[in-house]
Amino acid sequence: MSEKLQIIPIGGLGEFGMNCMAMRYGDEIIVIDSGLMFPDAGHLGVDVIVPDFTYLHENRDKVLALILTHSHEDHIGSVPFLLKTVNVPVYSTPYTAAVLASKLDEHNLTDDVLVHTIKPSGMFELGSFLVEFIHVSHSTTGCVAVAVTTPVGVVIHTGDYKFDDTPVCGAPLDVALLKRYGNEGVLALLSDSTNAERPGRMHSEKAVIPALEDIFDRAQGRIIVSCFTSSIHRIQIIFDLAQQFGRRVALLGRSMLRNIEVAEATRMLDISDGITITAADASRYPSDEVVLLVTGCQGEPMSVLSRMAVDNHKQAKVSKGDTVVLSARQIPGNEKSISRLINHIYKREAEVVDSTSARVHVSGHGAQEDLRMMLEAVRPKFFIPIHGEYRQLYRHKAFAISLGYSPDRVVLVESGDVIELDAESISIGDRKVQIGRRYIDSSGFGHIDDMVVRDRKQLAYDGIVLPIIAINEVSGAVETKPEIVTRGFNTPEEETLYTGKLSEIVSNTINLSSQEERRDRVVLKEKIRIDLKRYIQKGTGRRPVIIPVIVEV
Amino acid sequence: MSEKLQIIPIGGLGEFGMNCMAMRYGDEIIVIDSGLMFPDAGHLGVDVIVPDFTYLHENRDKVLALILTHSHEDHIGSVPFLLKTVNVPVYSTPYTAAVLASKLDEHNLTDDVLVHTIKPSGMFELGSFLVEFIHVSHSTTGCVAVAVTTPVGVVIHTGDYKFDDTPVCGAPLDVALLKRYGNEGVLALLSDSTNAERPGRMHSEKAVIPALEDIFDRAQGRIIVSCFTSSIHRIQIIFDLAQQFGRRVALLGRSMLRNIEVAEATRMLDISDGITITAADASRYPSDEVVLLVTGCQGEPMSVLSRMAVDNHKQAKVSKGDTVVLSARQIPGNEKSISRLINHIYKREAEVVDSTSARVHVSGHGAQEDLRMMLEAVRPKFFIPIHGEYRQLYRHKAFAISLGYSPDRVVLVESGDVIELDAESISIGDRKVQIGRRYIDSSGFGHIDDMVVRDRKQLAYDGIVLPIIAINEVSGAVETKPEIVTRGFNTPEEETLYTGKLSEIVSNTINLSSQEERRDRVVLKEKIRIDLKRYIQKGTGRRPVIIPVIVEV
Repeated sequence: MSEKLQIIPIGGLGEFGMNCMAMRYGDEIIVIDSGLMFPDAGHLGVDVIVPDFTYLHENRDKVLALILTHSHEDHIGSVPFLLKTVNVPVYSTPYTAAVLASKLDEHNLTDDVLVHTIKPSGMFELGSFLVEFIHVSHSTTGCVAVAVTTPVGVVIHTGDYKFDDTPVCGAPLDVALLKRYGNEGVLALLSDSTNAERPGRMHSEKAVIPALEDIFDRAQGRIIVSCFTSSIHRIQIIFDLAQQFGRRVALLGRSMLRNIEVAEATRMLDISDGITITAADASRYPSDEVVLLVTGCQGEPMSVLSRMAVDNHKQAKVSKGDTVVLSARQIPGNEKSISRLINHIYKREAEVVDSTSARVHVSGHGAQEDLRMMLEAVRPKFFIPIHGEYRQLYRHKAFAISLGYSPDRVVLVESGDVIELDAESISIGDRKVQIGRRYIDSSGFGHIDDMVVRDRKQLAYDGIVLPIIAINEVSGAVETKPEIVTRGFNTPEEETLYTGKLSEIVSNTINLSSQEERRDRVVLKEKIRIDLKRYIQKGTGRRPVIIPVIVEV
Repeated sequence: MSEKLQIIPIGGLGEFGMNCMAMRYGDEIIVIDSGLMFPDAGHLGVDVIVPDFTYLHENRDKVLALILTHSHEDHIGSVPFLLKTVNVPVYSTPYTAAVLASKLDEHNLTDDVLVHTIKPSGMFELGSFLVEFIHVSHSTTGCVAVAVTTPVGVVIHTGDYKFDDTPVCGAPLDVALLKRYGNEGVLALLSDSTNAERPGRMHSEKAVIPALEDIFDRAQGRIIVSCFTSSIHRIQIIFDLAQQFGRRVALLGRSMLRNIEVAEATRMLDISDGITITAADASRYPSDEVVLLVTGCQGEPMSVLSRMAVDNHKQAKVSKGDTVVLSARQIPGNEKSISRLINHIYKREAEVVDSTSARVHVSGHGAQEDLRMMLEAVRPKFFIPIHGEYRQLYRHKAFAISLGYSPDRVVLVESGDVIELDAESISIGDRKVQIGRRYIDSSGFGHIDDMVVRDRKQLAYDGIVLPIIAINEVSGAVETKPEIVTRGFNTPEEETLYTGKLSEIVSNTINLSSQEERRDRVVLKEKIRIDLKRYIQKGTGRRPVIIPVIVEV
């Protein structure tokens, strides 16, 4: 059979986040992961970004299933949007399924979606594909790599991973199973590149224990720990240390409560009875017997910790003598809000420990030694770096080549490229599939048009100018002096004078227009817009949005 | 005499940047530094931020002089704005004066401003103050601390500094002079807190040589180095290494050319004859004999390096085989643009070295050991941490206390506070002076009102909705169906339907209004605004800017 296997990244290659990978053989497509991306400051009013699923929509009769490697937002965050495009069964580990459940619930999809839970080393068939989950370690639990036996050979997708020999929760990465695949022959490996620029071996999740133990040992007052709610290992460590040092743990923040509940229900967390107290109870215990485990490690203004730090939370506040531990990395873009948070904590004379001052955080993504161990376990014929911007993919490729892989066996592609594989060869197809980003305003789960986002940017930079003209519908005569409304454009002092001048410009434009032009609202508006634009740009160098409004009376 | 000395931070304490400090004794005020702050993504359309100089304006008859510690933007960037408020003589080192000159020129202030150049260890009198410049080391040259002998005692302001025993350009910090002041007794020390959270001793400017030497040693093709144009030590090292390895240096970028010219003219740089070539000439040399020294280390989209990386620069482009060295820190907020730059460089198959992969950058601000050495040299009676957000000031205070300073001798203040000193005591005045931030749109050197910036933010997040109503001036009757103009608010598909509905709301509001309400435009507008706001918020959760416009016809 001459059919080739196609590997098609829909998102996440050449960009950070919204990981989504399609594999197609003939008329059968499976999808691995469907994540989201968080917007940066340039995407105004956008809450999340999800991939453009046009390719999957166009081939919706061919898509067999969605497979999830783990529960982080950049891997499952756009699942509801994908399922609204093409409703297929979902396959994931029990923990990932439990996290997904509340997401489906928010989107009222619970009753419409079929979720199969598969444990690591579990196998299932999807058309011509045979899929096996391979347990990997990462910063959350229930994480797997996916081995797909296809008609042309085995393809392994690592998901996110590190080689953690001493994870806090669960077993180490199942290197034996990877090696078994390696021994039998793997056609292609798709491996996480997030930390490809980082030399050495990534630390175990246990590596944070000494620093945290030191904090528990020295703290005289309350300990307030903030971490990602998905950091199950970290949360287990906090509970273990609380137990060891005779402290109770109170949870604050909806997602913290929910995620811990899910992790306990799926037996990913082991919490002793009686150690958890309510936030209300916490105030009744001596401060050196209390740990608060709270959301808000990125300094998000409305998060529990930020509100506690400015005395704007009902149940708790940061006080003198507290030790606040930010047990997470700073996500790029959040540096300023985290700094604001730390300033407020210091103003209340509490102590702050973050990853710059002590090892209270480790990454969940393998560094170069981990990547080498993965390559050596799997020994694939072809290698495809995934997950990362071009710089990480490039460095991962260069790293593989430095290990002896010949450059023609390493394929660097970005989202939208189509890789074609048979048992002997790999190539990149000439045709790309449509990919892109869709902006979501989560208040209504609505899609925001690209143009709206562009408009907002322009509004944001130079404001808006609206010339408003009342024209007599019949005679075409201007009924009043044109009115100029501006916003975000000028200072109030200057405004009256300047808008007066703009009003004159508009009057002038109308006066110099022919009777026909005046009757054609589109033409007249455009003439007014262009004349104002020229005048404003020349005088101020600014380019506000200009929208002439003609009221026919 | 019972008069007290007042120390009044106008900017830079409790915030990063726009450093400006006033010292007042009786009717005499001197000002040390007048910097700017770069806006973050939230300040839309704002180019730079400068302090509110109201206090200095109100006391403009008392201000004697402006003293500059060094030429970085956070210390001299707002000088033109201060001098437009109160035109006083400026005192600085020759290098700082030379950098300032082009800034004054841009603002057409050259002929109106008197600049005195003073060398380190130079003294000058300003009213009752006797001022001496003390040479310090930092990442640029011509840097001084300022010792001010006042009627109540000596106050030392460190400027920015580190203890660099082996600076590339110029002498080490003049610790002997500091100690002489210390021996004679110093009333108060104001010391830079930027790196107060960082343990250990800051590296010398020479510490980057081994990594850079290694790059020069290995590079087969061109070497492209980007650094801050004020990093004179760094630039000297690049020229020295080029000489050593037989390469010529071409400069690209206006500010790079200008700053190197200024540094050479003031003898801060020592460049061998014939080593500099033009960018045009560079293409005629073999690639392993060329260094390009370029602007754009922060990935600024219009900078030379960013344009070279996307083949959008007339004189040079990044090519396969080049080694690009980013010899600077990543300023928080620039991570994404730097990442974009690196992605593009890798796409052209050039190599990238930055401070994460090799020591090609060191900070110019002293770490804790440097801060200790400063405190031990000066041994002040009172200590005031300056330069930094609250977190840095707090940590600097805590560090001084850990060295044995009693807490009542260390004063933590923020911009606007008034410190009062006499020979025996220090206190913080009850009254604060007016301080704040002024937003500047540099296209016209114009000031942007706070309200405009707030409006822009709201516009940016939820767009704008303008109900436009034509009302008969005489009868108060609505002449037409209200028109709804939106921008950045809705998707085009929904728009017609939705704006139709909004139009009905407005008609309804007007119909339910009394004749008097209709005649009072302010009342009617507000009623329309509130009704629309409720309806829109309920239906979409959004809060666009709503501006009712009434056209009287």
